[in-house]
Amino acid sequence: MRTSDVPEVVIQRMPLYLRSLNDLAARGAKVVSSTALAHEVGVSSAQIRKDLSHFGEFGKQGLGYEVDYLRSQLERILQTDTQWHVLIVGAGALGHALINYRAFEHWNYYLSAVFDSDPAKVGQPIGHLTVQPMSELCNTIQERHVEIGILAIPAEAAQTVADELVHCGVRAILNYAPLHLVLPEDIRVSHIDPVASMQSMTYYL
Amino acid sequence: MRTSDVPEVVIQRMPLYLRSLNDLAARGAKVVSSTALAHEVGVSSAQIRKDLSHFGEFGKQGLGYEVDYLRSQLERILQTDTQWHVLIVGAGALGHALINYRAFEHWNYYLSAVFDSDPAKVGQPIGHLTVQPMSELCNTIQERHVEIGILAIPAEAAQTVADELVHCGVRAILNYAPLHLVLPEDIRVSHIDPVASMQSMTYYL
Repeated sequence: MRTSDVPEVVIQRMPLYLRSLNDLAARGAKVVSSTALAHEVGVSSAQIRKDLSHFGEFGKQGLGYEVDYLRSQLERILQTDTQWHVLIVGAGALGHALINYRAFEHWNYYLSAVFDSDPAKVGQPIGHLTVQPMSELCNTIQERHVEIGILAIPAEAAQTVADELVHCGVRAILNYAPLHLVLPEDIRVSHIDPVASMQSMTYYL
Repeated sequence: MRTSDVPEVVIQRMPLYLRSLNDLAARGAKVVSSTALAHEVGVSSAQIRKDLSHFGEFGKQGLGYEVDYLRSQLERILQTDTQWHVLIVGAGALGHALINYRAFEHWNYYLSAVFDSDPAKVGQPIGHLTVQPMSELCNTIQERHVEIGILAIPAEAAQTVADELVHCGVRAILNYAPLHLVLPEDIRVSHIDPVASMQSMTYYL
């Protein structure tokens, strides 16, 4: 595990900065002020300056940030040139959507395998993959050096499968199941929770 | 729009506290220390105390929080008893997954309609809904008082559809498309961005 004194919330915002810089570059911007970048991302400009200061000096006082330069620096910080092997557990509608989500491969997250406990789904093709039985999970993780698992399964099964992923060598889990996973401290977990996103919007309505 | 002096990041954490309190209650916990709750959520206990202090006094010094009481207070703050009408644009695999995601209805987010621009999908049943053509979008929003739209469509179409949703009366958008939406200030937007979640995990690997 990479050691870091940078607060986790800062690390969570870095991909958002990178995404906005990509959008700005696609629209032809060469330079962006911290105010304009802040507006894109939806944080304050003081927050951006403070977040970036953890990694060095990227802007010039009064001149803002060079879009391409800052983008390349964030890509370096986030190691976006590393190729990661990812597997998905769950070959339902969500599994299908994830396998067909082009942004993963664009950012070097390579979907290596998909698994399902339902014998009727095993053997079916989805995109470039074929659904494998859960009995092959551990071997596949070890043979293909899979470090990231995506849980696209119901809450009832999520903890058991997460435990198995970790036992077999997975070090990070993207969890779509509506359930808090209890895992060892050194395992990274991100929870995609659309209800939480809804609640933080409807608070304001 | 509800006025609020509470920072937006605090509002984004409140649903996570509520989710963890529900998990704790399901496991039979009656009382939880801020340290234990912090461990569940993955923030510091100082953060929890500071976040909750925006809304009042919920714990007793040295005794922690009563799980059921704090949970009911968070439900009140987040207005979880309000029923919201939600529509989905995009009847692909992600649209299917969202319509079958039981957590929405459990939390009073009622999926009222689903739309797709593909004539081959219009008329198909998905769960309790039937796919409608885009031409019916505006009327449906107004007739059914839909306030929230979910974008489950490719990036190319997302900005145009978001503009139409807002024009027809939608006030909050949950965006699954890998694209930053540019919308009026008073429209709430949440972006579900699995690549950003991946990057904030792989930073540490």
